[in-house]
Amino acid sequence: MAEFSIDRFVDRYAARTSGMSASEVRALFAVASRPEVISFAGGMPFVDGVPREEVATVAAEVLREHGATALQYGAGQGQLALRERLTMLMATEGLGADPDDVVVTTGAQQALDLLGKIFIDPGDTIAVEAPTYVGALGAFGAYQPRYLHVEVDQDGMLVEHLEEALFRGERPKFVYTVPNFGNPSGVTMTLDRRQRLVALCREIGIPIVEDNPYGLLRFDGDPLPCLKTLDPDNVIYLGTVSKTFSPGVRVGWALGEPSVAQRLMLAKEAADLCGSNLTMLMTERWFADDARWRGVLAGLVDTYRARRIAMAEAIAEHFPADAACTDPHGGFYLWVTLPPWFDTKAMLAAAVERRVAYVPGTAFYADGRGANQMRLAFCLPTEDRIREGIARLGALLADEEHLYRSIHG
Amino acid sequence: MAEFSIDRFVDRYAARTSGMSASEVRALFAVASRPEVISFAGGMPFVDGVPREEVATVAAEVLREHGATALQYGAGQGQLALRERLTMLMATEGLGADPDDVVVTTGAQQALDLLGKIFIDPGDTIAVEAPTYVGALGAFGAYQPRYLHVEVDQDGMLVEHLEEALFRGERPKFVYTVPNFGNPSGVTMTLDRRQRLVALCREIGIPIVEDNPYGLLRFDGDPLPCLKTLDPDNVIYLGTVSKTFSPGVRVGWALGEPSVAQRLMLAKEAADLCGSNLTMLMTERWFADDARWRGVLAGLVDTYRARRIAMAEAIAEHFPADAACTDPHGGFYLWVTLPPWFDTKAMLAAAVERRVAYVPGTAFYADGRGANQMRLAFCLPTEDRIREGIARLGALLADEEHLYRSIHG
Repeated sequence: MAEFSIDRFVDRYAARTSGMSASEVRALFAVASRPEVISFAGGMPFVDGVPREEVATVAAEVLREHGATALQYGAGQGQLALRERLTMLMATEGLGADPDDVVVTTGAQQALDLLGKIFIDPGDTIAVEAPTYVGALGAFGAYQPRYLHVEVDQDGMLVEHLEEALFRGERPKFVYTVPNFGNPSGVTMTLDRRQRLVALCREIGIPIVEDNPYGLLRFDGDPLPCLKTLDPDNVIYLGTVSKTFSPGVRVGWALGEPSVAQRLMLAKEAADLCGSNLTMLMTERWFADDARWRGVLAGLVDTYRARRIAMAEAIAEHFPADAACTDPHGGFYLWVTLPPWFDTKAMLAAAVERRVAYVPGTAFYADGRGANQMRLAFCLPTEDRIREGIARLGALLADEEHLYRSIHG
Repeated sequence: MAEFSIDRFVDRYAARTSGMSASEVRALFAVASRPEVISFAGGMPFVDGVPREEVATVAAEVLREHGATALQYGAGQGQLALRERLTMLMATEGLGADPDDVVVTTGAQQALDLLGKIFIDPGDTIAVEAPTYVGALGAFGAYQPRYLHVEVDQDGMLVEHLEEALFRGERPKFVYTVPNFGNPSGVTMTLDRRQRLVALCREIGIPIVEDNPYGLLRFDGDPLPCLKTLDPDNVIYLGTVSKTFSPGVRVGWALGEPSVAQRLMLAKEAADLCGSNLTMLMTERWFADDARWRGVLAGLVDTYRARRIAMAEAIAEHFPADAACTDPHGGFYLWVTLPPWFDTKAMLAAAVERRVAYVPGTAFYADGRGANQMRLAFCLPTEDRIREGIARLGALLADEEHLYRSIHG
């Protein structure tokens, strides 16, 4: 599957495909997946922290005990027992939920696609953070929206910027946010901003889509209430087991009021009929053992905390003094802003040549911003590899800076 | 998740959701899933024909041997080893394929959704058979096409009707067909019609989407070449392991030329990032044992043949003499056409009350046709249950006919 060069159907594709393109960084990421490259690019969880033998036992058990269900088609909404289990998982974050209002999806990513499908007409405005999750731009993008970017600072979305935009007459179909340890920013929305955001959106009648993949991966500080807890009616909540258990089971979910859940279920059935009964049964059983999943999660949190500390320390040592870096209290990502003349996309090839990779900042905006920014994922490499990779990246930044100074005096 | 009555976001949904509705038959099917109801409604494969213990062993093996992969995110296109295995499966039907041109999807259903996404602009025409697969209407419908229905007879799609429509100036974005043991018709396109269809579509430059879930489930007669074999460039082929192995692993695929495969992969990544590495590894390993999967498949084919014979015999015994019924040589479905005054949708509630269920014919057309038709799936109930269910349905048809005659003389 090489390229688009011989494109038999080029005049037949839908208009929406003009926004779907194989990015130039894709080829570089193929190189970056080689073992000698230390990759801070992908947000791959540390699955070695999940005991495989126990997962193998769970898989064999559900096939032996519920094989006729596991191997068969299932309901579009997902199994009731799993939906009940997921409400217990949400309760861990203080969020009350009715299993009837849960729709199980192929990771939370599919919930983004289905939300785009049921809400977005071409040309509709969607409010997203700046920077925002690249996968949300990809999912929503298929439905041809226009984006309203709302900036974030260390306290999360600048709600007053959204307020100003609404005052100017902007009316987004919904507001999309990752309030906990945002992807890519790593920042967390403060309680005060959460309250202002839900009050504002409720007043104007704009639904909020709260995407919370990382909420249980907190290293420091106390959990904050979900937006959905602050306003159960007006918030559509997305969760996933990809970060607390495994992305290999492809289990995420959306929690919305009945009319939203009903439409998501119909859209889910049209999109792929149903999820995998086998991996749903496995996920239900995994989380049925409270001590097990909490123990595994605690181990993952310890690992991510140590890696995040290693990365922050290495950045302090190796990056230019004028590089700014967010201070995440959980999740997978650090977000780095370099002096404005840096071009992280142009620099990526040189980085991969030096056997280190990251995601250029422009991927996280719909409007071309972010050229001097980068996302660094600390979730997968070991601490030693993190220190070595950041040293490699720091040396590249120093060389780039030296080159820039030598040209621009 | 009860109903739409309190619909907070009713004025915010996308226009395309107007075509997404919980059908009135959905509530009846919930009743029909009770064990006392003999259901000919759903196309649920006979998964008891797949040895669960062996599947459990396969699941445990891949988790023990490839756990780090099984539990992690995967490539949007799907694992290379699986794509290679799927090309071997296609070769069983005489179809040559390059694994690079295969995109693994969540069942073939997701391939239909992704094809809709990359090809259909609102108002575009799509040519489908009459009757056609209800799930294709659901998947494509989200992209707001107009349908050109092309009738089928016992020899499959009436290609001359398509030719006439093209002559009148119709220009569908693609032609969608289930050429082997069609869903819901049960009929198979003859070689002559296959050749005419591919020649016609190639000449006019209209891609064909060939959906082949049942090709390996042939009870009688010799296999015919795939449309994709007859024209490798202009046909996009869809396959699935749902009927030869298990729908619970949610593994289907699309085979298209590189430019189509590339766009499908990008659309797949936007829709759900990737499939389940775990169930992909399991599927690869299941089909790696040639004697095993062929043995299981042969057993399934024997079961389906016996059930199809039982159903056809019971229909001959219990249905009105003027009920016409197709004569499938494979697959899951019989298609029944009753005298024109029957209304199978209106009659379904009475059928469920008599503990038997089917899918009303109107579900398989986009234009309201099919009121006197029904799809009967013979794949899941035992032969005894099939005979009993057809007797119940035959008694209902006789009563309905008696009532009609008593009113209309």
